[in-house]
Amino acid sequence: MRFGEFDLIKNVFAPLCVDDRAFGLLDDAAVITPKEGLETVISTDTLVEGVHFLAYEKPEIIARRLLRVNLSDMASMAAKPNGYFLNLTLSSEIDDDWITAFAEGLRCDQEEFGITLLGGDTTHTPGPLTLSVTMLGDIPAGKAVLRSTAMVGDAIFVSGTVGDAALGLLHFQKTRDTSHRLVSRYQLPEPRIQLGQALRYIATAMIDVSDGLVADLEHICDGSGVGARIFIDDIPVSDEVQVIVESGLAKLKDLIVTGDDYELIFTAPEERSKEIVSFAETAEVAVTKIGVLDGKPGAVKIIDSKGSAINVDRTGYTHF
Amino acid sequence: MRFGEFDLIKNVFAPLCVDDRAFGLLDDAAVITPKEGLETVISTDTLVEGVHFLAYEKPEIIARRLLRVNLSDMASMAAKPNGYFLNLTLSSEIDDDWITAFAEGLRCDQEEFGITLLGGDTTHTPGPLTLSVTMLGDIPAGKAVLRSTAMVGDAIFVSGTVGDAALGLLHFQKTRDTSHRLVSRYQLPEPRIQLGQALRYIATAMIDVSDGLVADLEHICDGSGVGARIFIDDIPVSDEVQVIVESGLAKLKDLIVTGDDYELIFTAPEERSKEIVSFAETAEVAVTKIGVLDGKPGAVKIIDSKGSAINVDRTGYTHF
Repeated sequence: MRFGEFDLIKNVFAPLCVDDRAFGLLDDAAVITPKEGLETVISTDTLVEGVHFLAYEKPEIIARRLLRVNLSDMASMAAKPNGYFLNLTLSSEIDDDWITAFAEGLRCDQEEFGITLLGGDTTHTPGPLTLSVTMLGDIPAGKAVLRSTAMVGDAIFVSGTVGDAALGLLHFQKTRDTSHRLVSRYQLPEPRIQLGQALRYIATAMIDVSDGLVADLEHICDGSGVGARIFIDDIPVSDEVQVIVESGLAKLKDLIVTGDDYELIFTAPEERSKEIVSFAETAEVAVTKIGVLDGKPGAVKIIDSKGSAINVDRTGYTHF
Repeated sequence: MRFGEFDLIKNVFAPLCVDDRAFGLLDDAAVITPKEGLETVISTDTLVEGVHFLAYEKPEIIARRLLRVNLSDMASMAAKPNGYFLNLTLSSEIDDDWITAFAEGLRCDQEEFGITLLGGDTTHTPGPLTLSVTMLGDIPAGKAVLRSTAMVGDAIFVSGTVGDAALGLLHFQKTRDTSHRLVSRYQLPEPRIQLGQALRYIATAMIDVSDGLVADLEHICDGSGVGARIFIDDIPVSDEVQVIVESGLAKLKDLIVTGDDYELIFTAPEERSKEIVSFAETAEVAVTKIGVLDGKPGAVKIIDSKGSAINVDRTGYTHF
């Protein structure tokens, strides 16, 4: 690597700092002040090579996925993202070309989502490339949508389709073909920023699908002290997933517990459905009602077409 | 490891979240609102096993060092720290006992420095343990002390003593003896939080010594467009370092460019010296004037007792 630590900041990362809160990345810290009436929402996620992405993925794609995974947390809080910190722990494989391409991916999604680099840290590791982002957003005071505020009787909704990312990853691992739509669903998930913000005054609870539809819905149930019934026939899947299920190559109940879709699961009173559909149309994403919350704390039941509960083997992906 | 990902949050980390901004770590993000008239200062640092700490160091010590390194950035901005996010990327060596001891170290320094855990992410890696902290603090609006605002003619000051941490690390690596005072100076640096805040209205520029006295002073010079002359005989060293230098075991000019001391280097008008000394007494740390800023941008000159410039081989530690 030709770039020294300070060259890297000056030449590669400082141009990504398009904001006066971070002093051109030349200081020890950034200084953040939300506008009057707004609060700052902060979340953080780490991606590890070989665990959360593959070493042979393009650096631009890894960079964009890193931002999008973190942007999705802003969406699920109903916040508007505005900037991020980047902890880059570089493996010995990483060279200047890789870094330059990675920075280009950051730049691309910074523009797409209206965010800026605010600071970070660059270190080296004898292990795999490790990337942490801490994302900041803002929201009107008191309007963050939590996991813990769902109400018995609320309807359960999900955006987009479920199960695409897992199939996309499988396809990519077998073929390394990046042109397939499902592979894009894995590599470049679409954080539902616009929909999340639109739901600020309607959703009673919200979370994004990172661990899996069932596991993440369980977080809402645990947090809110409610139970959930979801109807498997109502769970939205893409045409590709539909074909795979119909041809017997995979079971729907196995696909719906996969993660990484970064869709939003949220709860709201049934009677707000029309508004929700209207917001979804504006945000150009489908929203589907998949179930209802009941008063039996904790459990998510998956109901088949005959009204019977289905057993699923796993409720999502955990890192352990 | 017996703890699953969610058990770890619930049993080990949620008790460290003593603050309602983070919803008991049960949500996707924390929501931060500085009190009126305050701004939020944010910085982040990563420590990698084998690079920034040694695998055989005690988990409590690693945890406390991780926090202190990040707290030192708050000190250097003159901010008052209040909470942090933790990205824990666990190697396969880490077991429940390690995690429990690590959390105890966090708890200990949370109490000492009045901060709380606000969120984070836990993942696994096939590589070495990797730890990132993103620290938050607050400061009256507009009062953060930057690197870029030093003035020609300002005196240059440093807190504490310089070179202890490097010798402490060397001693620890050879002997694994943790009882020596110099080893503590490496393992548990003292972030100069109180002094940093006291200097809010006096220091014209400030930085902490992480890369090395000369390298970090160069950051002030580069940022402020000034030059520096420091007098080697005025650089404060501990009795231990003095003995080592006098016995010819190490050269002072080599020791003063080592890093990891986490003292504060700051600039201020000479005539504020009395107030500075008074603040330092209150904060129970020595402050020593070591030089002066001149108008020759960029260069830090180290001057010997005869008034000649000394060449130093390296200006600090970079990770490349």
